Amino acid sequence: MRAVDVVQKKRDGGELSREEIEFLVRGYAAGEIPDYQAAAFAMAVFFRGMTTAEIVALTEAMMHTGEVLDLSDLPGPKVDKHSTGGVGDKTSLVLGPLAAACGVYVPMISGRGLGHTGGTLDKLESIPGFNVRLSLADFRRVLRECGLGLIGQTREIAPADRMLYALRDVTATVSSMPLISASIMSKKMAEGIDALVLDVKCGDGAFLPGIEQAKALATTMVGIGRGMGKRVVALLTAMDQPLGRAVGNALEVAECVETLKGRGPADLESLSIELAAWMVHLAGVAVTLDAARAKVREALASGAGLERFRRVIQLQGGDPGVCDDPSRLPHAKETIVVRSERDGRVARLAARAVGDASMLLGAGRETVQSTIDPAVGFVFHKKVGDPVAANEPIVTAHVGKTSRREEALARLRDAIAVAPEAPAREALVLDILT
Amino acid sequence: MRAVDVVQKKRDGGELSREEIEFLVRGYAAGEIPDYQAAAFAMAVFFRGMTTAEIVALTEAMMHTGEVLDLSDLPGPKVDKHSTGGVGDKTSLVLGPLAAACGVYVPMISGRGLGHTGGTLDKLESIPGFNVRLSLADFRRVLRECGLGLIGQTREIAPADRMLYALRDVTATVSSMPLISASIMSKKMAEGIDALVLDVKCGDGAFLPGIEQAKALATTMVGIGRGMGKRVVALLTAMDQPLGRAVGNALEVAECVETLKGRGPADLESLSIELAAWMVHLAGVAVTLDAARAKVREALASGAGLERFRRVIQLQGGDPGVCDDPSRLPHAKETIVVRSERDGRVARLAARAVGDASMLLGAGRETVQSTIDPAVGFVFHKKVGDPVAANEPIVTAHVGKTSRREEALARLRDAIAVAPEAPAREALVLDILT
Repeated sequence: MRAVDVVQKKRDGGELSREEIEFLVRGYAAGEIPDYQAAAFAMAVFFRGMTTAEIVALTEAMMHTGEVLDLSDLPGPKVDKHSTGGVGDKTSLVLGPLAAACGVYVPMISGRGLGHTGGTLDKLESIPGFNVRLSLADFRRVLRECGLGLIGQTREIAPADRMLYALRDVTATVSSMPLISASIMSKKMAEGIDALVLDVKCGDGAFLPGIEQAKALATTMVGIGRGMGKRVVALLTAMDQPLGRAVGNALEVAECVETLKGRGPADLESLSIELAAWMVHLAGVAVTLDAARAKVREALASGAGLERFRRVIQLQGGDPGVCDDPSRLPHAKETIVVRSERDGRVARLAARAVGDASMLLGAGRETVQSTIDPAVGFVFHKKVGDPVAANEPIVTAHVGKTSRREEALARLRDAIAVAPEAPAREALVLDILT
Repeated sequence: MRAVDVVQKKRDGGELSREEIEFLVRGYAAGEIPDYQAAAFAMAVFFRGMTTAEIVALTEAMMHTGEVLDLSDLPGPKVDKHSTGGVGDKTSLVLGPLAAACGVYVPMISGRGLGHTGGTLDKLESIPGFNVRLSLADFRRVLRECGLGLIGQTREIAPADRMLYALRDVTATVSSMPLISASIMSKKMAEGIDALVLDVKCGDGAFLPGIEQAKALATTMVGIGRGMGKRVVALLTAMDQPLGRAVGNALEVAECVETLKGRGPADLESLSIELAAWMVHLAGVAVTLDAARAKVREALASGAGLERFRRVIQLQGGDPGVCDDPSRLPHAKETIVVRSERDGRVARLAARAVGDASMLLGAGRETVQSTIDPAVGFVFHKKVGDPVAANEPIVTAHVGKTSRREEALARLRDAIAVAPEAPAREALVLDILT
């Protein structure tokens, strides 16, 4: 078999066999197939797409270039959640502890933020001492002890995906549905999970803003999961305004603690419960989704979720005291309150612009090399639809030394609209694909 | 400017500016833009195509990565011919001397054969001593002395094209009309010519068999020439059967000598005169095409063409005695005569299969690394349409030590069909694009 012939077959719209895909992926991971052939392949896939069978084969081939966790020794179902990323999207830190408290093992391997979106690892690292770089052996120990482990992608997981992603980034082949979905699923499926809940964001602040594109991505990923014999469900959820009230790493951790205490914002609490309920349901712990919801609500009300969060922080070297005293989290020296210029209702808090503004404050990364300030960000006092009076605070910016504050505040102000009438309230969960 | 953004613009169907194309080509030639970005670019061009303005910019950018000959010190017009390649396609060795004899400078930089097609350099090198690797300074001296020079592509000419061609070969991006035409034209236009005659082959033995594709290529190349301010004409010519009677390097040289003596096959003589006449006409040496044809015929009849051929052989270190005594050319030890199995007319001598068979005999290259045997090949006693009796010879195979003779003869027999009726005779020149 020759790589050039496989590339040509895809270029001409042919369906590649599992053997051809494995040949390419293994050869690429082994350094036998050069970058330029992989780049030509990626561009051909961009134009020609892939069938579900091809995407499943690509996902499995990439997954098998690295280690696939075997968690069969853990006495219970293993389920994870993956989000395509958003602004203020902090559900992992709420639903992970809740699902674990319901008897599900949650082996969560997460990423960092880039551009306008935040990342779970950055949020966790705002907790003093929290170590997201556990060895796989330590990860396994933490998981066993508290049902939940939270780490970053290690070099052992799907190296072909890491190589291909870096290549796609510099060859204009990132925005290809088959390549996006295979990349996500090859990493998630390497976690050794039985089931996966996907939170596919739609709207202004999402990676794929349009609902049709988001649905296509969700459909593809559910198809991959099914092709690999796993239970996968995808929830399409709204990402037009930030989720919850906090945007920025330490601010979001504090909000998660509040939420686990039953005092969180309605949207964050509701979406976290819904996603956790799907995890519990797919795990087989509750036969119906309603029973699963009840179980998750009980874990929230009883404080069992918060207890799990406290425990995982401790096991991963962090300061669990942040659950009692949020002032132990990093905090900004300075705050700036942005007020409404008129009476009315909040008509827009554009998620992408808020994300960009928080990046300019230093809460996010402009490039993968950027360093972030865990303390900075925004806390919104109003959400879309809320009534607001002239001069009433809409948002407080937490500003740091490295903040590009003028740019950030200008971008933030652009994101906000107050009008006589607010748009009709949109459902948070737009669709469910099983 | 970033290469990834230029690739993305082309991927999304945008028209690249001259600056963007120059940035890519110069960066690639300088080693600043890596192979993988060039490969992604080539695949994007494969799918999206290019406008004439883009192709002109690409051609010029590739040309300017190397030396562009300045022949302005030669006191006369400079014109070349380029063929897209065929089987038995030896017109260069006839029309070059004829055009030179008419007062046109012909700075011919040619290629080698690959697959079923032959190459001018291989034919020339079958002449004992003939040196196709002149320095550009020596090339210039030969040109000045006899009006004709015949060399191979040097490292100084369009290095970006050489790099890109090698890359396209391994990334399934060869068959892209813009890339093919820019590749051809960047090398030809570096010859410092005022005008160019293109012989675009159509039919079974051509690089692009279909007339529509051939016409598209011709149109594109004529457009490039016009965009670069040069006079360019393209003749679409038939390549369904071998041109002339000889296929194989020394055999073809002998046939060219015969043709320059006025004793060549009708099709070879006629096409060579027609192409040479266009060269003479575009050069401005003859005001009408008919006057140019008369001039070329006179150069043939007077022996002035043969005289030029003799002279260029001598100037480039070869044995001009081959013009008087063809036995000074390499010749095969063994010949095998293939005869007709029935009475009828020759209905087919499929050019591609004949080319493949001659490659199997050792006259052509299977890969660029293959070595060739200058003596081997075929001489056809019959052409399509000729009457033939049972047992009458159709073709004589000249066989060498390295010939894969069984395979070659089987392929040759497949190429030949004798039937009660021959197809209607097709014109040799199918169309002319100016």
